[in-house]
Amino acid sequence: MGEDNLNAKTYSVGVVGATGAVGVEMVNVLKDRGFPVGELTLFASERSAGTTMTTAFGPKTVTLFSVEAAKACDIVFLAVSGDFSKAHAKEIAESAVVIDNSSAWRLSDEVPLIVPEINGHLAKTARLIANPNCTTAIAAVALWPLHKAFGLKKVMVSTYQAASGAGAPGMAELEDGILAGARGEAIKNEVFAHPLPYNVIPHIDVFQDNLYTKEEMKVSLETRKIFGESGLPISCTAVRIPTLRAHSEAIIVETDKPVSRETALAVLKAAPGVKVVDDPHNNQYPMPLTATKAYDVEVGRVRNNIVFGENGLEFFVCGDQLLKGAALNAVQIAEAAISA
Amino acid sequence: MGEDNLNAKTYSVGVVGATGAVGVEMVNVLKDRGFPVGELTLFASERSAGTTMTTAFGPKTVTLFSVEAAKACDIVFLAVSGDFSKAHAKEIAESAVVIDNSSAWRLSDEVPLIVPEINGHLAKTARLIANPNCTTAIAAVALWPLHKAFGLKKVMVSTYQAASGAGAPGMAELEDGILAGARGEAIKNEVFAHPLPYNVIPHIDVFQDNLYTKEEMKVSLETRKIFGESGLPISCTAVRIPTLRAHSEAIIVETDKPVSRETALAVLKAAPGVKVVDDPHNNQYPMPLTATKAYDVEVGRVRNNIVFGENGLEFFVCGDQLLKGAALNAVQIAEAAISA
Repeated sequence: MGEDNLNAKTYSVGVVGATGAVGVEMVNVLKDRGFPVGELTLFASERSAGTTMTTAFGPKTVTLFSVEAAKACDIVFLAVSGDFSKAHAKEIAESAVVIDNSSAWRLSDEVPLIVPEINGHLAKTARLIANPNCTTAIAAVALWPLHKAFGLKKVMVSTYQAASGAGAPGMAELEDGILAGARGEAIKNEVFAHPLPYNVIPHIDVFQDNLYTKEEMKVSLETRKIFGESGLPISCTAVRIPTLRAHSEAIIVETDKPVSRETALAVLKAAPGVKVVDDPHNNQYPMPLTATKAYDVEVGRVRNNIVFGENGLEFFVCGDQLLKGAALNAVQIAEAAISA
Repeated sequence: MGEDNLNAKTYSVGVVGATGAVGVEMVNVLKDRGFPVGELTLFASERSAGTTMTTAFGPKTVTLFSVEAAKACDIVFLAVSGDFSKAHAKEIAESAVVIDNSSAWRLSDEVPLIVPEINGHLAKTARLIANPNCTTAIAAVALWPLHKAFGLKKVMVSTYQAASGAGAPGMAELEDGILAGARGEAIKNEVFAHPLPYNVIPHIDVFQDNLYTKEEMKVSLETRKIFGESGLPISCTAVRIPTLRAHSEAIIVETDKPVSRETALAVLKAAPGVKVVDDPHNNQYPMPLTATKAYDVEVGRVRNNIVFGENGLEFFVCGDQLLKGAALNAVQIAEAAISA
């Protein structure tokens, strides 16, 4: 990695897929967190190359992606499809640190899967690093401190996922569909399997042999890998609902050690990346309305679970899936990678 | 009860709260199911009394409620507040069969709480009968056949509840709010604790000492009573989402006996009140889009739960909370009450 000025090390950074919802947020977060960016290159496909984007770093001309140009960077963020990443990530990683937001490498034994609050140290030695699924990352920052303090035996998740999980086109389809319906017109669906306005779709990504969806199995398998707990039983029902941004999750855990609302809140309040929002009598709990565009994951509705008693906890989390669920976590990985 | 014609017994029926969302549906369902209605009296408060409503039985003038007038009916449906029911239900029940949709009597030892598919026989001898909470009734028709076949040990529910759970004003607040937001105007909230458009509110009804909400504890306590299983551990997280009608629920159960997708589907397909919608590879599963205005509760996404293995099941249900969750179940109770 280059040293670009005398006072502080800076890094040549590339963002591949810079015009997408996640790519745009990556550039915002790099600026907002003061990442030591020397040169910034925004890569995209032929459709966008040559156009100028307004960014937090000023106007930037979009560069046509090439492996060679990406390899010239110190750090490359991939905000592209899994197929694209499969094709190019390893080669770029020969000379740059690659942080990949796709699912291509997340379960590969050779590639660390990182939520920096949990296993950020793995970033220091890796060339190719996987960024977890959005729903996984949001749950993990709340589950990990509870796991360390009380020992998780069982984890059960039900999600409330926003249209933006399907990118900007998903958000547009929801908003356009609601307004079309209000005008008495037909509601189109191309991004989602069914019309999303005023609907609930218990189907995100493709169904697997066990009839969980791929999204649901990502939560299960990725969390195990991040925690280093290959046997931890985790189930998920992943549900798309008509919200725009920020995923919510209702989570039940059974614990090894007894837990109470008070001991759990103390642990969560001390946990990095978590904002405890839990004052039910004043109507304060996690919601997309307040979690959208926030870095920390909101955690609240903390209570002993009726089914598991003093060895069980039930709570609600809400996080911005474009930030902690994608761009923020990726930039945090880069911060961990360059930390001494 | 009177005999009003020579061929078949008919009943004088009163609906109290006839102008509300549930009251309107009760009248629709009475007609649609061919309930033997002789005289029909629509009761409401002074605000609506004297106005004429268009109903499935033709135009009807709304009658000012009085206990005496209600007592003159054979069967009285109460679609009113718990306070109203507390004040008047017992007195009306001195001379009429009263089916109460409020929560006032649901947990009273003297009053049966009925889902006819489960414990309809209790309706034959009771004068005052409680209709369960909407979320409870929708879950119960799916849980009961599974309980009989496999024995439920643990039940965990996460809900996706529509605005209509707060009646017609809740639906109007959601739709008006979404359109106001699209025009760049402020989004008002009076019915809900926070603006509901594009938001998720994990708070329905008031918080109890154990920090579950009253709605959540209704699911737990009412299901136990309906099943006659006072010790069955049931937990619930009840969440309001921006849909108009039909509640969805993600449910996990642990069972005494081993269960599989196949054996569970066979049981559910044979269960009254259940419509199995479970063809994931053809994108068929329960949704508000298809469950709205349907009598049967949709059940799908049936699979062995990862956490409990062959002694666990995970599934998704969706039911119209104004129908099975309220008006339909109430009329079914009346049908059970008059059955020989």
